[in-house]
Amino acid sequence: MSRIETLSVALGERSYDIVVGPDLISNAAQLIAPLIDHEPAIIITDDNVAGYHLGSLNDSLKSAGITSTVITLPAGEITKGYDGFQGLLTAILDTGPERRSTLIALGGGVIGDITGFAASVVLRGLDFIQIPTTLLAQVDSSVGGKTGINTQHGKNLVGSFYQPRMVLADTGALNTLPRRELLAGYAEVAKYGLLGDKVFFEWLEKNGKALIDGNDTLRQQAVIKSCSAKAEIVGRDEKEAGDRALLNLGHTFGHALEAETGFGEKLLHGEAVAIGMIMAFDLSAQIGLCPIEDATRVRTHLKAIGLPVQPTDISGQRWDSAALLGHMGQDKKVREGKITFILTRGIGDAFITSDIDMSDVEALLDRAIAA
Amino acid sequence: MSRIETLSVALGERSYDIVVGPDLISNAAQLIAPLIDHEPAIIITDDNVAGYHLGSLNDSLKSAGITSTVITLPAGEITKGYDGFQGLLTAILDTGPERRSTLIALGGGVIGDITGFAASVVLRGLDFIQIPTTLLAQVDSSVGGKTGINTQHGKNLVGSFYQPRMVLADTGALNTLPRRELLAGYAEVAKYGLLGDKVFFEWLEKNGKALIDGNDTLRQQAVIKSCSAKAEIVGRDEKEAGDRALLNLGHTFGHALEAETGFGEKLLHGEAVAIGMIMAFDLSAQIGLCPIEDATRVRTHLKAIGLPVQPTDISGQRWDSAALLGHMGQDKKVREGKITFILTRGIGDAFITSDIDMSDVEALLDRAIAA
Repeated sequence: MSRIETLSVALGERSYDIVVGPDLISNAAQLIAPLIDHEPAIIITDDNVAGYHLGSLNDSLKSAGITSTVITLPAGEITKGYDGFQGLLTAILDTGPERRSTLIALGGGVIGDITGFAASVVLRGLDFIQIPTTLLAQVDSSVGGKTGINTQHGKNLVGSFYQPRMVLADTGALNTLPRRELLAGYAEVAKYGLLGDKVFFEWLEKNGKALIDGNDTLRQQAVIKSCSAKAEIVGRDEKEAGDRALLNLGHTFGHALEAETGFGEKLLHGEAVAIGMIMAFDLSAQIGLCPIEDATRVRTHLKAIGLPVQPTDISGQRWDSAALLGHMGQDKKVREGKITFILTRGIGDAFITSDIDMSDVEALLDRAIAA
Repeated sequence: MSRIETLSVALGERSYDIVVGPDLISNAAQLIAPLIDHEPAIIITDDNVAGYHLGSLNDSLKSAGITSTVITLPAGEITKGYDGFQGLLTAILDTGPERRSTLIALGGGVIGDITGFAASVVLRGLDFIQIPTTLLAQVDSSVGGKTGINTQHGKNLVGSFYQPRMVLADTGALNTLPRRELLAGYAEVAKYGLLGDKVFFEWLEKNGKALIDGNDTLRQQAVIKSCSAKAEIVGRDEKEAGDRALLNLGHTFGHALEAETGFGEKLLHGEAVAIGMIMAFDLSAQIGLCPIEDATRVRTHLKAIGLPVQPTDISGQRWDSAALLGHMGQDKKVREGKITFILTRGIGDAFITSDIDMSDVEALLDRAIAA
């Protein structure tokens, strides 16, 4: 193993390392062995990811003499509902876990979110390790301890803050991803530049295309940069009492778009975030907070990369401003009935506000869905 | 309001007060108003408790100008399964909660456990306040932040450690309890004496009967003493990494008895704990750890109070040692396959051990079910 970097999320006794590099899955045992207090380790994955990576992980554990058991869930967002969650809890309890048992989440955001939530509640708390296999999970959902499931009321409305013991981001796993999923993850990478690091956004303008096209070194650099940014914010504000909300840039709009499209294949989460970030820049420009050139520049880059940049890029979907506004009002970040927005003064300069005139938001939505 | 005592559970920023006294429900608003950050407050109760106490609580909140909404669940342990829990989550989300919303658990152990668990996961964590109305909930389950639900694998196997913002133990509410429930709660009161406070046990030998028969002052003293003991242990070891396990005196045996009787009316939790504590003393005496006189004294007192003291006191139940042992092996406190026992060197001197010869346990079980 070479070219491996280790970052730390500083949360006192709940601190943990994020290890980024190639070939981490096939060398997982030597990294995680010190954390396995009780065997078998319980691997949770989906039937898609299992085909690519479960063999390497199992081989690695076996070669280190660590016994494991595997729970394989159906791939897709549907697994993240109450039924899927109850099924997972039952499957974990069937293995006869003890409090020191460790769950290993091998997969994308769905597997990481549901495994983390299960870890937080089985026997009132087991250890868990994240092995994210998608770009989106590596740069965002596997880091920071937000876990959850979806309900009829919305996405991730039931869950917990529960930190993993370690995150292994194997950048080699990104080679198994369909291009569309890679692009969706790229939206979250770009988010770190847009919210607080203009230099990184400029780096992405220069290197984003090559990164998407397969340059491993650039991918690893982007994952490390993204995880560093997230670790720094989470270390400062684990439970989103303040600054952590900056990570929701594009998400209030994005969740509303996802809710309208049914949280499925029609519009991936990262795609919704891409459109949502552009809407946040457009709204900021519209009300005079941000230079219009910056909003244009964001749109230009994300479009050049291959991401959808406006609601009308999603084919076969009818949009309605009132419905989108309704979804935004159900967000977890609503406070005293006021929706929290992450807006911006320019690229790399996002801020949190709930002092927005809803008629401005309506005007923005009307423009966006007419575009 | 007079004769009110306030204890503190010291857990850093998660510290909270336990307020004990008469008439606390009808005066609840003045105590909890400072904690209500967002209205309406969401009261969760059951259809039995609602008839006794919901009116007073609502009147108090109304008089203080605090709006509230009520979710009423069916009374009984059945509510504490997956279906009941999902129904509660849906009902809470239907009210449109925000992160600063507060849940108020008004009821016994089931309501407190399920409300606390819901509070820990809705929007990744709401505030909650415990208003326990049974003796068992006042002296045990409402304090210390253990929340949970039952699964087919056993009791409380899914849940969280999540602390309330305040506990209001209205000792006047105990007057609405059936005698059998009062006795069941008394077993947990006696537990505090048996595990670490011989003087308190002697006080109970002298005053227990009058307390059960209705002496309010004695009841309040017993609740305060019990909550103090629990608060002290929880402050030292919130997540049961060590000493907190002492609070499980009688519970490993007790849970096995409950599992065999179906966790229902046939054998109440407190009754199972009474029998379990006597089994723990008997086992300790049998292997020479504890004077046999102490085991006899415990049995004599609990019997005199009116509690069942051996499995055969439960009419119409057939017992089987192997089945009981099987249940004990599924306990949350199992470590490396070894069952953790709370045994004793005498009244007031319990300790934790997993170094017990299972043939001794079998012999104890055989004796107990033949008695």
